[in-house]
Amino acid sequence: MREVDGQVQAWAFLDADHALAQARAADEFRLSGRPVGPLHGVPIGIKDIIDTADMPTENGSALHAGRTPSRDATVVAWLRAAGAVILGKTVTTELATYAPGKTRNPHNAEHTPGGSSSGSAAAVAAGMVPLAVGSQTNGSTIRPASFCGVYGFKPTHGSIPRHRMLALSRTLDHVGLFARSIEDLALLAEQLVGWDERDPDTRPRARVPFAAVAAEEPPLPPVFAFVKTPHWEHAEAETREAFAELVEHLGDRVEELELFPSATEAWAWHRTIMEAEMAASLEREWRTGRDRLSESLRAQLERGRAVRAVDYQHALARIRPVHESFQELFEQRYDTILTPAAPGTAPKGLTSTGDPGFCTLWTLCGMPAVSLPLMHGASGLPLGVQLVGPRDGDARLLRTARWLVARVAGDPDARA
Amino acid sequence: MREVDGQVQAWAFLDADHALAQARAADEFRLSGRPVGPLHGVPIGIKDIIDTADMPTENGSALHAGRTPSRDATVVAWLRAAGAVILGKTVTTELATYAPGKTRNPHNAEHTPGGSSSGSAAAVAAGMVPLAVGSQTNGSTIRPASFCGVYGFKPTHGSIPRHRMLALSRTLDHVGLFARSIEDLALLAEQLVGWDERDPDTRPRARVPFAAVAAEEPPLPPVFAFVKTPHWEHAEAETREAFAELVEHLGDRVEELELFPSATEAWAWHRTIMEAEMAASLEREWRTGRDRLSESLRAQLERGRAVRAVDYQHALARIRPVHESFQELFEQRYDTILTPAAPGTAPKGLTSTGDPGFCTLWTLCGMPAVSLPLMHGASGLPLGVQLVGPRDGDARLLRTARWLVARVAGDPDARA
Repeated sequence: MREVDGQVQAWAFLDADHALAQARAADEFRLSGRPVGPLHGVPIGIKDIIDTADMPTENGSALHAGRTPSRDATVVAWLRAAGAVILGKTVTTELATYAPGKTRNPHNAEHTPGGSSSGSAAAVAAGMVPLAVGSQTNGSTIRPASFCGVYGFKPTHGSIPRHRMLALSRTLDHVGLFARSIEDLALLAEQLVGWDERDPDTRPRARVPFAAVAAEEPPLPPVFAFVKTPHWEHAEAETREAFAELVEHLGDRVEELELFPSATEAWAWHRTIMEAEMAASLEREWRTGRDRLSESLRAQLERGRAVRAVDYQHALARIRPVHESFQELFEQRYDTILTPAAPGTAPKGLTSTGDPGFCTLWTLCGMPAVSLPLMHGASGLPLGVQLVGPRDGDARLLRTARWLVARVAGDPDARA
Repeated sequence: MREVDGQVQAWAFLDADHALAQARAADEFRLSGRPVGPLHGVPIGIKDIIDTADMPTENGSALHAGRTPSRDATVVAWLRAAGAVILGKTVTTELATYAPGKTRNPHNAEHTPGGSSSGSAAAVAAGMVPLAVGSQTNGSTIRPASFCGVYGFKPTHGSIPRHRMLALSRTLDHVGLFARSIEDLALLAEQLVGWDERDPDTRPRARVPFAAVAAEEPPLPPVFAFVKTPHWEHAEAETREAFAELVEHLGDRVEELELFPSATEAWAWHRTIMEAEMAASLEREWRTGRDRLSESLRAQLERGRAVRAVDYQHALARIRPVHESFQELFEQRYDTILTPAAPGTAPKGLTSTGDPGFCTLWTLCGMPAVSLPLMHGASGLPLGVQLVGPRDGDARLLRTARWLVARVAGDPDARA
């Protein structure tokens, strides 16, 4: 593991002996004949903004160096209860924002892995773990999944509890998942979607049989809405070509859909909300250690501190009507939105984690999104296809995703 | 009615013919032998910030003069479904804030009836209607109920839908109820507590049998926590004396409770939230007609527009921990908090509606509160006793209130 990681640098904390001890305990438990959980013995990487009682959680910030929380985050506790082995903590950007960590793209070490869940995406891509957990406040799961060529899944806002996870923005923070197949994403989601009253955005609901639904054949072939969004102007040539081919390949299963005008302002609302909520959430860091924050984060917090409450409320109030317009589209005509996961393949260089703009609208609306590693750029680097579904339509979104993966796999010409 | 109202001026809109036609239709319906609702034929006054499809709703503002909504608010629709006759619209202060309307106190026309639900309280006090609906964002139900000597009830935040009611502050706006007995308050609440998905703070819940619970004898005599709050320094001498007597009368059923330090900042948080949310809610009025707003409202909106998003969020984030501290007290020891409804009897003069400060903390926390007309000042004007219960403990709060009313009535010496 250490040798594999030498190049990739996916881990913020990895104690091989501790992991081995957990794995041995899992083996002994299984041998005892007692019933085991659905993730029994499966090693998982946890983004280093999610608290673990037995490992440090440093949030990618010098300000939190040496931080050792005494309790597990809800997602960690639920993973342990499902039998998983918490292998280690994966690298995050600074406080899950933009300043990169040490991780490199497993496909080409000169390129960014994306962020902010850099280590989670890279660890799965490099085969170090089959599953990893990250987060998304703008494009922090879907973008690194696309850049690293793995499956990434950001379930509906409020479906996975965020208790004891670094909070940036209650409105926008989501837990994100990484795996090497749709089936594995479904298995992981099934353990983590649920109610925790300590996350006030989660709700008591009937259990969703993610794995069973994702494995079903759709009753009818799905209909996709290809949505370019105003961010399409940032899409690279190879992304445009790849999507043109994919759309052609899908034939009458896809229609291009013009975004309604109100949604085009979503990027500005997202920014207002994210920066205002970050400024409140990171008040302590600002007050006690702003000189040890990156310049870009300092600038973001300064902007956030200047946001007026009326503008913040105005942005918040726009989420519901925009979301309802999408809801109507889903009810009337489309199963799923088809859109790029990122403007192109992972950019060269390690000073930036790339552009989250193709994720912003769906994060704002809290809609579930998945990135599928179905394409490649000319360089050979992976390029993700993003599918977006209606809120709480997570399991069906995975079912549709599986249909698309099979369709593309069945016709190699459809790959870019 | 017109003669009675001549002095009090409780009505913003009252069409005797229309009311009579509704009442006749109700009579005919009953004579037909078909099943009737629990409020069949009961006349009700509706605060003029709550939309009615068949009457104007002018929100107490020159800016909304002549406004005739085409649809009923949820509470109006539910009242009609219960058989009630909407008698007319009761006077509100300007946009349910502080600048008084024309209403006078039925007990002494030189004194304020309180506000902002001035007409609802006065109409019930003058015997013009047995029931009325108002609202509370700070002290707009409990204070006028106290000043007018009627029973006032502000149920738990989010329990009565606010759809098609003037919105000032999503966090603080409550529907409030007025009646001449606890039993009538319970009957009214039973019709109005429920889920409307168009008010995102309401939730699907089991129906609460308000009337049945309120009529029960408590299994044990209740234990009251007498809480003065920092606002006690504004309490008038006669209020202090009246409460000293009441506490003495209750003997070992009451303990004085010092407010925990964090709660003492609640007044500042309430102000930040209310002014920031009002500034967003009344953006259109500000933009298009601020010269026709009262000076005090203009100043409030100016302050609200200057609030920073970080300070607004900080204030919002304080609600939960303060509320949880009260929750612990209720779980461990006390049935109900006992506290004044207002600093004293209705002040003389019609240029102000009095001081809402004894309601602020409970409104901020969304806890249910009731004002009971159990005391009088030296002038003979009424003085309310406020009881506050835990969130969603509304029906039990009414049960405790009924116990206290019986206890005080049984011992005339306990009246101040």
